[in-house]
Amino acid sequence: MQGLMQDWPLLCHTILDHAARVHGEQEIVTRSIEGPITRSTFRTVRHNALRVAQALARDGHSVSDRVATLAWNTDKHMEVWYGAMGIGGIYHTLNPRLFPEQIAWIINHAEDSILFTDLTFVPIVAAIADKIPSVRKVVVLTDEANMPQTEFGAVSYEAFLDGTDGDYVWTKVDENSASGMCYTSGTTGNPKGVVYSHRSNVLHSMMATPLDSLGFAANETVLPIVPMFHANAWGIAHAAPMNGTKMVMPGAGMDGESVFELLSTEKITFSAAVPTVWLGLLQYLEETGKDLPDLKRVVIGGSACPRFMTETLEGKYGVEVRHAWGMTEMSPLGSLGALKPKYSGLPMSEQLDIKEKQGFAPYGVEMKITDDEDNEQPWDGETFGRLKVRGPAVASGYYGGDGVEQFDEDGWFDTGDVAHIDPQGYMQITDRSKDVIKSGGEWISSIELENLAAAHPDLVEAAVIGIAHPKWDERPLLVVIPKEGKSPSKEDILGFMDGKIAKWWMPDDVAFVEEIPHTATGKIQKTTLREQFADYTLPTA
Amino acid sequence: MQGLMQDWPLLCHTILDHAARVHGEQEIVTRSIEGPITRSTFRTVRHNALRVAQALARDGHSVSDRVATLAWNTDKHMEVWYGAMGIGGIYHTLNPRLFPEQIAWIINHAEDSILFTDLTFVPIVAAIADKIPSVRKVVVLTDEANMPQTEFGAVSYEAFLDGTDGDYVWTKVDENSASGMCYTSGTTGNPKGVVYSHRSNVLHSMMATPLDSLGFAANETVLPIVPMFHANAWGIAHAAPMNGTKMVMPGAGMDGESVFELLSTEKITFSAAVPTVWLGLLQYLEETGKDLPDLKRVVIGGSACPRFMTETLEGKYGVEVRHAWGMTEMSPLGSLGALKPKYSGLPMSEQLDIKEKQGFAPYGVEMKITDDEDNEQPWDGETFGRLKVRGPAVASGYYGGDGVEQFDEDGWFDTGDVAHIDPQGYMQITDRSKDVIKSGGEWISSIELENLAAAHPDLVEAAVIGIAHPKWDERPLLVVIPKEGKSPSKEDILGFMDGKIAKWWMPDDVAFVEEIPHTATGKIQKTTLREQFADYTLPTA
Repeated sequence: MQGLMQDWPLLCHTILDHAARVHGEQEIVTRSIEGPITRSTFRTVRHNALRVAQALARDGHSVSDRVATLAWNTDKHMEVWYGAMGIGGIYHTLNPRLFPEQIAWIINHAEDSILFTDLTFVPIVAAIADKIPSVRKVVVLTDEANMPQTEFGAVSYEAFLDGTDGDYVWTKVDENSASGMCYTSGTTGNPKGVVYSHRSNVLHSMMATPLDSLGFAANETVLPIVPMFHANAWGIAHAAPMNGTKMVMPGAGMDGESVFELLSTEKITFSAAVPTVWLGLLQYLEETGKDLPDLKRVVIGGSACPRFMTETLEGKYGVEVRHAWGMTEMSPLGSLGALKPKYSGLPMSEQLDIKEKQGFAPYGVEMKITDDEDNEQPWDGETFGRLKVRGPAVASGYYGGDGVEQFDEDGWFDTGDVAHIDPQGYMQITDRSKDVIKSGGEWISSIELENLAAAHPDLVEAAVIGIAHPKWDERPLLVVIPKEGKSPSKEDILGFMDGKIAKWWMPDDVAFVEEIPHTATGKIQKTTLREQFADYTLPTA
Repeated sequence: MQGLMQDWPLLCHTILDHAARVHGEQEIVTRSIEGPITRSTFRTVRHNALRVAQALARDGHSVSDRVATLAWNTDKHMEVWYGAMGIGGIYHTLNPRLFPEQIAWIINHAEDSILFTDLTFVPIVAAIADKIPSVRKVVVLTDEANMPQTEFGAVSYEAFLDGTDGDYVWTKVDENSASGMCYTSGTTGNPKGVVYSHRSNVLHSMMATPLDSLGFAANETVLPIVPMFHANAWGIAHAAPMNGTKMVMPGAGMDGESVFELLSTEKITFSAAVPTVWLGLLQYLEETGKDLPDLKRVVIGGSACPRFMTETLEGKYGVEVRHAWGMTEMSPLGSLGALKPKYSGLPMSEQLDIKEKQGFAPYGVEMKITDDEDNEQPWDGETFGRLKVRGPAVASGYYGGDGVEQFDEDGWFDTGDVAHIDPQGYMQITDRSKDVIKSGGEWISSIELENLAAAHPDLVEAAVIGIAHPKWDERPLLVVIPKEGKSPSKEDILGFMDGKIAKWWMPDDVAFVEEIPHTATGKIQKTTLREQFADYTLPTA
């Protein structure tokens, strides 16, 4: 027997319609690329999104067409997203931090039909303009007055919208239709395209909304520092209008001073960004002696949030830290670290222990950890395993059928991370599954060893990789950079670690180097390190 | 082009699975029907729901079977709901406040196959046991020790679950399958069955979750005083486990003292109930001089929340009032009155003006107001029209095809209410569409006239109905009950109203009566009143 409830498909335009109708006067404030702070509203953003849709349709773009954006967080970027979805098309964010050739490769793989760019990135587009044949027009998100001359015939946003009046009806598509695209770039292989549906974006917004997630409401003000080109803007570009939350868009200004200015003049109540941004803000606060009276909480993810950062933000500035974890493939929220009521009475140091974990899953994210034989592992906070996830906003595949090996037959997505989960559901990433060291059938976390070794006073940095071993399959090798003028011995370092980890976790050897390779985002490049030590032989005990 | 996101159907069991996995230790506290306060957890409720599903399957109940409940809010009632949905069946709540014959009529209309009842309602079941042939078993939600002898062969919940161990896999059904049923009983005609789907219940829970709705979170504690048999429990039985919110179930105790006891011993942070319950609590607080230190907010709906109630709860006790409106047909949330930031600086009296309205729609509820020709009316806070709604948790029809006239061809459900909506989206119910007086093509609100007249110091109560008029179609007649020993004149009363309403709203006549008919829930029975005044002739001006 079927329910007797309305067929009301979960389409992204319903979010903006709701915002314009019920929260039409709510503001979107933007630090514009041209310089000044500009003020718009949800009603105006919707009107302009309808104009974008009209102009796209006029130019012959249609259902399923990919609309690329190479842009900062601004109201105009929002308009393009919703305009693209409004014709049944697909917004496709490009990460300007990639090399131009990578950007061109991604545009060609996705076969984008039009490209919207900020003034900042016109030089990138100039460098690839003759290598992206599917792109029929480039629109620079500025007005005629600020429009530069380009050799590739770009038009301004103002010129693009000229002649449109917003008299457009959103194109109706199935809720499982594609609405957005974002490529992930791993350390190996080509980038892979994640394709969000309207349904996944709407449901993900509802998952991002609760107080234990990001906490959207009509009397909150959010500063999404996390870029719209980074993992679907962590859902904020959908969840804020869904809840009538005032948005403050930082444009290109992510340094400590710029962030502080918006936090204070616009009375931001919550924000979301990677640790690097908060580091910049904390340094600025320290230098200036300024304070954060309005900010209530920040969501920190993208990479692990260091303990001192949580301690400083909570202890010194009274800002609650939500340590979060997610992936582009998860739309991206996977877990968030709200403090459960049973922990509220704990002393700060014990609360920090909990906040070092990446939090618990919201409704709509299922997690399990498994060993190499896919046996589920207990949630005891100690046993770790491959982290697999399932949910309505988790990818079922990549564009073009790439990366099929990450998707289990029974619907689980293998995150490539290794984690443990405690009985309260708090999950902590302990390693990448490629980097975990498998010794005698048991797993050793390379990250835990690195963190421990890096605390040695004579070391700058530490990395741990697995080295082939005839008896144990693999054993850990610790690779370290000593501080200038220091030369700690192997025994010094291992002695420092002794007693703090299980005996069989102790690295079999220590290698001293001058440099450890890193990725563009600052992570240790373990593949390169493993190549460097390919011929290394561990000492026999 | 389709999105590449997982097919993860929105099924109600995923809510309880999530609660048991991530918030397994979270408590459900119940004032049991047998007397003592009992304590359970989401993990235990899930285990017992699996046992209920097992026992239902053992007894031959299956997909689409209706599982009736005649019960208070308790952990056991939750177990039966989720157990019923777990076999692909349908929980069907019965309102014990109806007459036994009405309850029997509803059971027979729905063809319920089993009935779970609380001890309290065994006499009701005894009275109808031989009139409900589809019901194959009656289970009393108690243990063997408290089980009464019944002439209709009922078994105890303990006996029903005997031999089950919870080793059961939830039956997979389509997300649009029926999951729950609740009959509405209007003032005319037979009750009509609303049929919730799994999808509507899950989406409605997500709509009930945000801070601007009910505000569920893991460190909140909710006291759902609104019964599970009243309009789908306002969504709380789904939204609380979805967010790991501690639940305190009041059982049969809804008087001021019982409510206060739970509020204070269990440190309730928010609650939901009809105005009558809060009236009882306020009286108890006044008598005892007690306070509400933990309670942060209450959601008040079911009927309009009086201004003094909001004023007292907010001003004297510091409890935020959320005036809400909904319908069984809407799962039931339609609008909630969180205060928008632009109003936060207003003086109390102006905030109360806003809080007299029923609030704004959450995402997932679309509203419009129309005139008799279905022309949309402006959101100016003055023009009123028939209130129509649309959304994924709004009914598309009634069970068995009843009441088709309430559903527009273009998918809008006619609520039967008349309302105005202001530019900020705040909606206020001004009348039932059956009761609004249509004078010369314009509408006059019977409720506004009643409220105004009832403020006259010499009157006990006032009602307004439309009387046929040769020129204006209808004109208002004011029907009043004078206070004992008072005999105000028609001129007195109309003079009191003069200047407070538009001239053409002024009732054409005043009728003095000793009694005004009411429904079981205390509303004025306008149909009966209209019958009484069927032959009434208005004076010619």
